[in-house]
Parts: sequence; C-alpha cells; structure tokens
Amino acid sequence: MKAVYLDNNATTRVDPAVVETMLPFFTEQFGNASSAHAFGASVGGALKTARKQLQELLGAAHDHEIVYTSGGTESNTTAILSAIEALPGRDEIVTSQVEHPSVLQLCQHLEKTGRAKVHYIGVDRLGRLDLDAYRAALSDKVALVSIMWANNETGTIVPVEGLAELAKGVGALFHTDAVQAVGKVPVSLKDSAIDMLSLSGHKLHAPKGVGALYVKRGARFKPLLRGGHQERGRRAGTENIPGVIALGKAAELAILRLADEQGRVKDLRDRLEKAIVQSVPHCFVNGDPHDRLPNTSNIAFEYVEAEAILLHLNRAGIAASSGSACTSGSIEPSHVLLAMSIPVTAAHGAIRFSLSRDNSAEDVERVIEVMPGIIEKLRALSPFGAEGGKETSEFKPQYA
Amino acid sequence: MKAVYLDNNATTRVDPAVVETMLPFFTEQFGNASSAHAFGASVGGALKTARKQLQELLGAAHDHEIVYTSGGTESNTTAILSAIEALPGRDEIVTSQVEHPSVLQLCQHLEKTGRAKVHYIGVDRLGRLDLDAYRAALSDKVALVSIMWANNETGTIVPVEGLAELAKGVGALFHTDAVQAVGKVPVSLKDSAIDMLSLSGHKLHAPKGVGALYVKRGARFKPLLRGGHQERGRRAGTENIPGVIALGKAAELAILRLADEQGRVKDLRDRLEKAIVQSVPHCFVNGDPHDRLPNTSNIAFEYVEAEAILLHLNRAGIAASSGSACTSGSIEPSHVLLAMSIPVTAAHGAIRFSLSRDNSAEDVERVIEVMPGIIEKLRALSPFGAEGGKETSEFKPQYA
Ligand SMILES: Cc1ncc(COP(=O)(O)O)c(C=O)c1O
Ligand SMILES: Cc1ncc(COP(=O)(O)O)c(C=O)c1O
Repeated sequence: MKAVYLDNNATTRVDPAVVETMLPFFTEQFGNASSAHAFGASVGGALKTARKQLQELLGAAHDHEIVYTSGGTESNTTAILSAIEALPGRDEIVTSQVEHPSVLQLCQHLEKTGRAKVHYIGVDRLGRLDLDAYRAALSDKVALVSIMWANNETGTIVPVEGLAELAKGVGALFHTDAVQAVGKVPVSLKDSAIDMLSLSGHKLHAPKGVGALYVKRGARFKPLLRGGHQERGRRAGTENIPGVIALGKAAELAILRLADEQGRVKDLRDRLEKAIVQSVPHCFVNGDPHDRLPNTSNIAFEYVEAEAILLHLNRAGIAASSGSACTSGSIEPSHVLLAMSIPVTAAHGAIRFSLSRDNSAEDVERVIEVMPGIIEKLRALSPFGAEGGKETSEFKPQYA
Repeated sequence: MKAVYLDNNATTRVDPAVVETMLPFFTEQFGNASSAHAFGASVGGALKTARKQLQELLGAAHDHEIVYTSGGTESNTTAILSAIEALPGRDEIVTSQVEHPSVLQLCQHLEKTGRAKVHYIGVDRLGRLDLDAYRAALSDKVALVSIMWANNETGTIVPVEGLAELAKGVGALFHTDAVQAVGKVPVSLKDSAIDMLSLSGHKLHAPKGVGALYVKRGARFKPLLRGGHQERGRRAGTENIPGVIALGKAAELAILRLADEQGRVKDLRDRLEKAIVQSVPHCFVNGDPHDRLPNTSNIAFEYVEAEAILLHLNRAGIAASSGSACTSGSIEPSHVLLAMSIPVTAAHGAIRFSLSRDNSAEDVERVIEVMPGIIEKLRALSPFGAEGGKETSEFKPQYA
C-alpha cells in the first residue's frame, strides 16, 4: 500500500528534477564560489542562474535583493535582529499572536532581555488580524513589523501588502514570514512596500538546509553572520552551493506549477475537506474560508485527541500533522488555534492536512474513506462518548 | 589535462560514498524528523546513526553534545554570542589575532557596539600564540576564550587543550574553531577542558551547508536560533537531514582515513614544499614547522603578487589560494601573515597549497614542474626584477 503524505506544510519531497540539477555540484563542480580559480568560477555562473530563478519567483526587482540562508528560522532571526540593530532610535516590534515559533520565541526573548518591546496583535475566529489593534500599535518607536504572509497551521492568508504600507507610514521596516506562501500563491515584490521576506527551500520541493531572506534594495540591514564578503557582506559563511542551485531549480518549477497548485491541488483539498465535514459529526474547518492557501486544511474534531487521530492515520499509512511539526510531540494545544478563540476541546483535536503537487485523487479518497471510522472509534473510547459528544457540542461547523 | 585541486582548506570534493548515503533522503525518506508519523520516524534512526558517527570522530562522551548548524561560521557565531549571554557578569572575550574572519569580525562588532571587551592575543614569527599575553588576559571578567585549533592559512596547530585548562581556571568558557582540524588530526573531547568546538562539513568531504557545534554537557549555552525543540532546543529550524547524514558518513570515512591524511598526504605536502623551496629562489614556508596540519603548505614568494601567481597556476590547471577563500579577491595581505610579522613584500606573495586524500603524486609533480618558471617570469616583470630581488631579500627561508 503506497503511503499517503499529507504533511507538506512540514516539509515536501525534493523534486527529482531538483536533485538532478543539484547533483553535479557535490563531486564535480565542488569549488568554493569565493575562490579565485577555475573551480570557483564555474560555480559562479550556476549561482547567478539560480539567483535569477528565485528572483523571478519572488517578482523582485534585483537578484541581489536575495540573501541565501540555511532556512526559514535563520531568515526570520536575521530579519528581526537586523531591524532592532539597524534602527537604533526605535526599540519596538509589532507582530501577531499566530506567528511561527521562530518569530514568537525570538520576540519573547528580546522582551525578556530588555532589548525590545513587543506588540502581539490578536486575530479573530477566522485567523484574521485585528486591524484596529495593528494600527494602534504603529508609531515612530516601531523598528520592525513582522507579520506572516500565510499561516502554517490554518493556511489563512494575511493582506501583508496593506499592512506594509501602513508600517512604511511610520518609518518602520516591514518583514513577512512567507515560508508557507512562496510557491503556493503568487508573490510580486517589485512594487511592494515589503522590506524583507523569509522563505525556506524544503517547503517548496527544494532540500532542507537552504532558504533565503529577501532584503529590498535600500532597506537598512545588519548581518547576523559576519566575517566574509559572501552575499555582499550580508551573510558570511561558505555558500551552500548545491542548496542554492536546488532552490533555483525549485523556484523555476514552482513558477511553472503555480497554476496546478491553485487549481488541481486546491480542488483535491476542497474535496477532502468537504467530504470529511459532511461524513464526520462535530468537526469544523479552521481558518479564513475566503483567503486561504490552496493546499491546507485544518480540521478540528471535537472531543478527540489529535495525537490519537494521527496514530490511527499513521496505521492506515497516512501522514498528517496536529499543527506545526515543531510543536507536535508536545501536548499543548496550538497557540494559533487558541489565539483564534477555538475552544480547547476542539483545538486539542485539530488535524492539519497539507497537500502538494505530489498528491493524487487516490490519496484524498483514502483519507475520506478511513476518517469517519477513526473518529467514531476514538469518540466511543472518550469520556464524552459518541452520544455525549453530540450533546455537549457548542460549535457550528463552518462547512456543514 | 586533469585539473589539479590544491585548495582543500577552502572546500573539499564531497566523497562519492557520502553522496550515495545522503541521496535517498531527498526524495524517498524526505520526512521532517520532528513529525509524529512514519515519514518522520524512519528518518530519526538515520539521524541517530549520523550523530554517533560524528561523536566518534570527535571522541565526545555523549552524542547529544553535538548541535548541528549550517556551517563553521554559524557555529562560531553561536558559540561567541552564547557565551556573552550565558555568563552575564562577564563581558570580556579572549581570542587571537590569527582567527578566521568569522570570529574576528564578530568580536570587532561586539566591541564596537559595546557588548564586549576583546583581547586579541598576538603570535610569533611561526604563528605560535604568545602564552604570556594569553595568561595575562585571563581573569574573572572573561566570559569566553575562542582560539582556533589549526590555522586555515598556515596550518599551524595551537595547543588548545592547555589553553582550555587555563581558561577553566578563571571560570571562562573555552571555544575552539576546529574547522580546519577535524578530519586532519585526531580529536578527543571526552576528557578535555574544551567546552565548545566548531566544525564545518565541506572541509571534510561532506557537503556545504552543514556543520556542527560541540557543546560539552553541562556547559552554559544560549541558542542563536530559537523557536523549535530541534537539537534539544539549542538550534531551532528544520534539520538539514541529508546534510547531517552526509556529515555522519564523512565522519566515518575521516576516522578510517586519518592515517592516510597524516601519512601519504603529509608526504605529498612535504615533497611539494621541499621541492619548491629548493628550486625557487627567495621563498619560504610560513607556519610552525613542528606543529602543522599535514595537508597545508603556505609559501611566501618574495616580490611577487599572489594574485598573479594564482592566475598563472590557474592557466596551468592548478587551483591554489592566496589565503582564506573569504578574503581572496581583496588585495590586502593576509591578517594572519601580518600578525606573524611576515614582511608585506613577502606576505603579498604568499600561496596556500592545501591537499587532501583526493590528491595524487602526479598532482604534486605538476606543481613542482611549473612553479619555478611562473615565479621567474613574474619576477622578470616586477619592479624589483630577478636580480634586484636577490639582492634586497632580507629573510632566510625556513626550509633551505
Ligand atoms: C511559517 C513558517 N515560518 C518559519 C518556518 C521555519 O522554517 P525552517 O524550518 O526551514 O527553519 C516554518 C516551518 O517550519 C513555517 O511554517
Ligand atoms: C578556520 C575556519 N573557521 C571557520 C570557517 C568558516 O566555515 P564556513 O565557511 O563553513 O562557514 C572556515 C572556512 O572558511 C575556516 O577555515
């Protein structure tokens, strides 16, 4: 039985064409791009192409606006620490309650060590940012706004362009964690007010260990890693050449396949979601139904434990997630769902299905087939019971 | 004509066996190690093996003393920033004048921004640390000592173990940049006073983009990248699984081949060095002749420009370097050679030949063949001229 992988927001399979493109750079063209000899020079051309490919995916004005990093976490960390260093008169950060832990935990650490004051803007029941609170938090004390483009757990898309314009109005830098957005929705930074944008290769069919931080030309910037002139002095350390070349190829493929992501993948996701909500009692979809990533479905199954559901799915050969991979394994309910005021009894039973172009209709049908049985069995074992569960439910599913 | 690669201190060719070991983790076992499903679990076992392999190369007491990073620069940055945060009552750093730029430039930045006072210990004509100055700099104000195990430009080996004991005596943490040492000389951290050690995969036939920071059990530590429980909360971000597995395999091979490195490779290096010093007038070897990496030879050719030599070597299909790859391209003479009081006229003409197990006797003979002609030609063109050069030389070559 072929395994069904529906955890693409955690990580994706590297596209075989990406592996093939990258492969010669391990053993044949293995030179250091900074070296002044033929081994270095031959690599330089390939790096240039890769940079152009990523520039195109981002719709960036200049290819040197891309700073390669080791992934999303390093990109986010670099952006945040850069801003509080680069704008010394300002020591406030505006972010949201539903950011990825790599943003939230760094912000909490900066608060704790007295290096910044942080505003954590709330969201509504659909995960949409509280715009009034956002506007109120902006001032000339704000060094940086960091708001994600798309939420990793629910797929909710944030209107970052408008938020960036508002940040610009008070002279703050605007950073967006677009780790989940790039490759899934169109991005065009050329005429945007966004100063910095984070992405991670392994979320778009490139390998783990490579990512990028877009830094708009002219935006004030301070490096996190110092000591070499790599990336125009913005990120020292020998470049991950195979990774960068892989990311370029993955970007090229993402451009070609964006329509598939927004058409076929979205149709699969919608089919999965609607079938489950119709066949399983007491469950509902989390996130903004009008503005969501095409590949993500977060479904809360009331009065069941997500970890138990995952175990049964796993036995059926299906991989999904109870939220971001970074926090699964813990039994705390998701901070994203709690910020959305999803009741704990439902947040505890939330499963994220995240698709990609690697998924087929058969994958989705397999999940639809097993899901009602799994939930029924688990509810029969739970203190609320199948009947009790029905009685105590206080929430109307969004799709029902 | 097969190209001759003698720039292995800049980067090495990935061992084909390493590529083969890593390959399945891009497209088959591509799961996220943190995920609670079969795709994640199968990767977990391979990661454990890789960690054990690296532990063995380092002679570390526990495999969880290894924190994977993106490379040497991130490891060095993490160690230094960690120490000044983790020991709040102390704000001094002791380092040397011949460290890699990733250490020196970060230290200079911390000084400039008032976050630390830094002691830069000098070296003698052979690159050996001034022990009196080192002892004098140690006090209970020192948070961290960061001294490299082996110099990337000259190969000079530093007696770090003794230095670490002294640091321990004043309660400071001891970090060593062992990026050039690991895989070339035996390392055993089990009973050592070293608290932290940096290494980088691509210097030992693993890919670029993966490295590690050894952190001794019990040593105080603060992460640079926050937000996930990866690496026991010491380095957030999705693990570079293929990279980590590659580094494990490379470690296994390094253990097997350490004798080759210290025997055959050293013999090749010695043959190269002696033949050049004998056949080319007015050149000498830099570094400690008694305690040097087996693969590295730094030769200063007086009254010639290193960049011109490299150009001619390159035309002859030979890749070498004028110092660390990070600083080549600039025309400043090496800070390492200047700290060693090598006169500028010689430092400007210093070439680093760095070998590895990939080199053969034929490689070395090719260099020996072309070198005298290249230097003669360049000196004929130089303002000092071939004759003039002979007259004005004030230095006795070490090997002559
Ligand atoms: C929204 C978001 N930001 C940041 C990250 C961190 O990316 P990485 O794991 O590549 O460091 C992730 C993925 O885990 C993510 O989903
Ligand atoms: C001694 C030393 N330290 C640190 C580094 C940095 O390693 P990386 O380029 O992998 O970040 C290097 C290599 O350039 C080095 O030779």
